[in-house]
Amino acid sequence: MKQTEISQLGEFGLIDRLTKDFPLRNPESKKGVGDDAAVLSFGDNEALVTTDLLLEGVHFDLRYVPLKHLGYKAAIVNFSDIYAMNGTPKQITVSLGVSSRFTVEHIEELYEGIRLACEIYGVDLVGGDTSASVTGLVISITCLGVAAPEDVVYRNGAKPTDLICVSGDLGAAFMGLQLLERENRVAAGHKEGFTPDFAGKEYILERQLKPEARKDIVALLKENGVKPTSMMDVSDGLSSELLHLCRQSDTGCRVYEEKIPIDYQTAVMAEQFNMNLVTAAMNGGEDYELLFTVPLVDKEKIDKIRGISMIGYMTKPELGCALVSPDGQEFAIRAQGWNAFQEESSRPADKND
Amino acid sequence: MKQTEISQLGEFGLIDRLTKDFPLRNPESKKGVGDDAAVLSFGDNEALVTTDLLLEGVHFDLRYVPLKHLGYKAAIVNFSDIYAMNGTPKQITVSLGVSSRFTVEHIEELYEGIRLACEIYGVDLVGGDTSASVTGLVISITCLGVAAPEDVVYRNGAKPTDLICVSGDLGAAFMGLQLLERENRVAAGHKEGFTPDFAGKEYILERQLKPEARKDIVALLKENGVKPTSMMDVSDGLSSELLHLCRQSDTGCRVYEEKIPIDYQTAVMAEQFNMNLVTAAMNGGEDYELLFTVPLVDKEKIDKIRGISMIGYMTKPELGCALVSPDGQEFAIRAQGWNAFQEESSRPADKND
Repeated sequence: MKQTEISQLGEFGLIDRLTKDFPLRNPESKKGVGDDAAVLSFGDNEALVTTDLLLEGVHFDLRYVPLKHLGYKAAIVNFSDIYAMNGTPKQITVSLGVSSRFTVEHIEELYEGIRLACEIYGVDLVGGDTSASVTGLVISITCLGVAAPEDVVYRNGAKPTDLICVSGDLGAAFMGLQLLERENRVAAGHKEGFTPDFAGKEYILERQLKPEARKDIVALLKENGVKPTSMMDVSDGLSSELLHLCRQSDTGCRVYEEKIPIDYQTAVMAEQFNMNLVTAAMNGGEDYELLFTVPLVDKEKIDKIRGISMIGYMTKPELGCALVSPDGQEFAIRAQGWNAFQEESSRPADKND
Repeated sequence: MKQTEISQLGEFGLIDRLTKDFPLRNPESKKGVGDDAAVLSFGDNEALVTTDLLLEGVHFDLRYVPLKHLGYKAAIVNFSDIYAMNGTPKQITVSLGVSSRFTVEHIEELYEGIRLACEIYGVDLVGGDTSASVTGLVISITCLGVAAPEDVVYRNGAKPTDLICVSGDLGAAFMGLQLLERENRVAAGHKEGFTPDFAGKEYILERQLKPEARKDIVALLKENGVKPTSMMDVSDGLSSELLHLCRQSDTGCRVYEEKIPIDYQTAVMAEQFNMNLVTAAMNGGEDYELLFTVPLVDKEKIDKIRGISMIGYMTKPELGCALVSPDGQEFAIRAQGWNAFQEESSRPADKND
C-alpha cells in the first residue's frame, strides 16, 4: 500500500482526510469537526465540546514551564475554545499519562494549576483517566460548555465588508517563549547559580506561561449588543486563524499591519532578538485572544469597548487574503503557524478542531 | 517537599487525592469524578461524559494489535462506559499523538476502526486534536451520551439482598492476551515464516482484539422492565469492579465461584497455560461486560433474559466482600486488577473515572 508521510498533508490536511467519512447521524450533533468546538443539542441549550492533547517534548518543556502553570494553561486553552464559540465553559475532564519520574506531589502541582483555572473561570472538573506512561507527561483535557442556540458563533458567518477585530495584543506569548528558551540555553552553559534576568519582561513571560481566556471580551460584546458574525481564538497565530475564517466564511480579507495590536515589551524583545515584529505578531500563536468579525453597523459599539482593535475588513473571496503595509503594499497572508508534523520543536501550540 | 511515589497510592488513590479539592460549582454538573461517566444536565436529558487515554507500550502493543482493531476497541471502551450508566453513546472526540514512524495510511487504518465502531453503535465523531508525538502513539477519546434523568444508573445504588448479575462471560479477553503474547514471543524466536496457530481460539482472540460494548443488554433490561440499582462495566476485572460497587453502595457481597460465567475456550487456554481459571475470570479485565445489581423481586425478569448470569448477592457492609468456593469456603475479594503504576506491562487496561 502507498505510504504517505504525515508532513506531506500537515495537521489540517490529515484531519480533513481522516474525518471525511464520518457523517453525523444523530440529530443532536449540530456541528462536528471544523470549529473551535463541536456543537451538540441536548435540550434548550447547546452543549459545546472541545479537546486538547498536550505532549511533553512537543507542546511543553518542563525545563522552563512550572507544572502549576502548565496545568493552568492546559485548562485555559480549552476554556478559550468555548469562549471562541461565544459560550461559557462549564466542565472539564482531565486525562493524564504519567511516567515514573513524576511523584504524587508533581501531579498535585499540575492539578493545583488546573484547580485555580477552574475556580477563576467557574468550571467543574467532572472526570478523567490517569495512567502510567512509559515516556513523558501526557495531558488530554476535554471541555464542555453551554450557549443559547441563538448565541453560538461559528467560523463561517463572516460577510464581505464585515470588520475584523481582535482582542488584546498579539505576539507576546511567542516572544515570551523565545526569552525562556534563550535563558534556558544560557543557564545550560553555567555550572550553577545562574539567575535569569526577567526584569521588565514580566508581561511577555506571563503571556507565555499563564495566559488567560477572554471571558471578559465575550461578556463585553454581549453587554454592548454585539454578536460577532464569526469568531475563533488565536492559538496558532493570526495568519493561520484569518485564513480559517476566510476559508470557512468564503471571504477574502485586508488586514492593516499598523493596526495589529502589539505590546511594548513584545516590540522591545523582537528588537533584541532581531526578529521581525509583524511576523511574530502574525505567526506567533498562543495568544488566546479572540479574533472575530462584526457587521460594519456595529463599528460604534466596538469603538466603545476597551481592549478591542479593528484591524481590517472582510472582502469578496476573489480578492484573496492580504496584509497591507503602511505604504499601501499588499502581501498575501500565508499560514506560517507552527506545523507539529514538520519538525520537532519545543514550541507549544494547541491545535483545536 | 515530601515526594511520594505514585505507586504508593495506586491509580484510584491518586485520583482521590487529586480531585478532592474540586467542588462542583455548576448546577448542571450532577455527578463528577467517581463513576463510569460524569452526568451533566443540559436540558430534558442528562448528558454523560467519559474519557479514556490509551498509550502505546502501556495499554497496547502494536506488535500484535492491528491498528484497525485498536481504533475499534478505543471507541468501544468509551461506549461501554456510557452503557454502564444505562445511557446511549452519541458523540466522540478523538485526540491523537502520532510519532513520525506512522504514515497517513496507518492513521487511516486506526480511524477505519473508529469509523466502524461509530457506524455500528450510531455514534458521531464530532471533534478532536491531532498532534505530533516524540515517542509512540497516544489516543485520547472522550465520549458523550444521553439518558433520561430517571434512567441513569450509578454505582452507588445497590442494597443488601440485591442480586449481582453479569452479562456474557469473563476472562476470555485476558486469555486472548496471554495467547497473543505467547505467539509473539514464539514468533520472535523464528527468523521468518512463522505462522501462529489460532485455530479453535478465535473467540478469546476476538474478545481481546475486538470487544463489543453491551448495548444489547441495556436494551434488553429496558424491554423487560428492569432498572439496575447499580451498574458498571468490567474493564479492570470482576474483583476490582465488585469492590467499587460495594464501596460506593456501602454494601458487602457474596459471589459464587461456580456461577461465574466462563467460556469453554477460556477454560481450555487456562489449562494450557496452567493458570487458575477463577483468577483469570476475577482479575483478567477488559471483558467490557456489564456488572449490575437488581432487587430480588426482579429475579424472574432476569431469568428470562439470555446471556445474563446471576453470580451472587449484596450483603450488609459489615459482612465484607467474599468469593464463595464450591465447598462453601469464603475468600475475601481483593482487587488484583492491573495497576498501571506498579509495573510496566503490555497488558492493556482502561481506567475509567
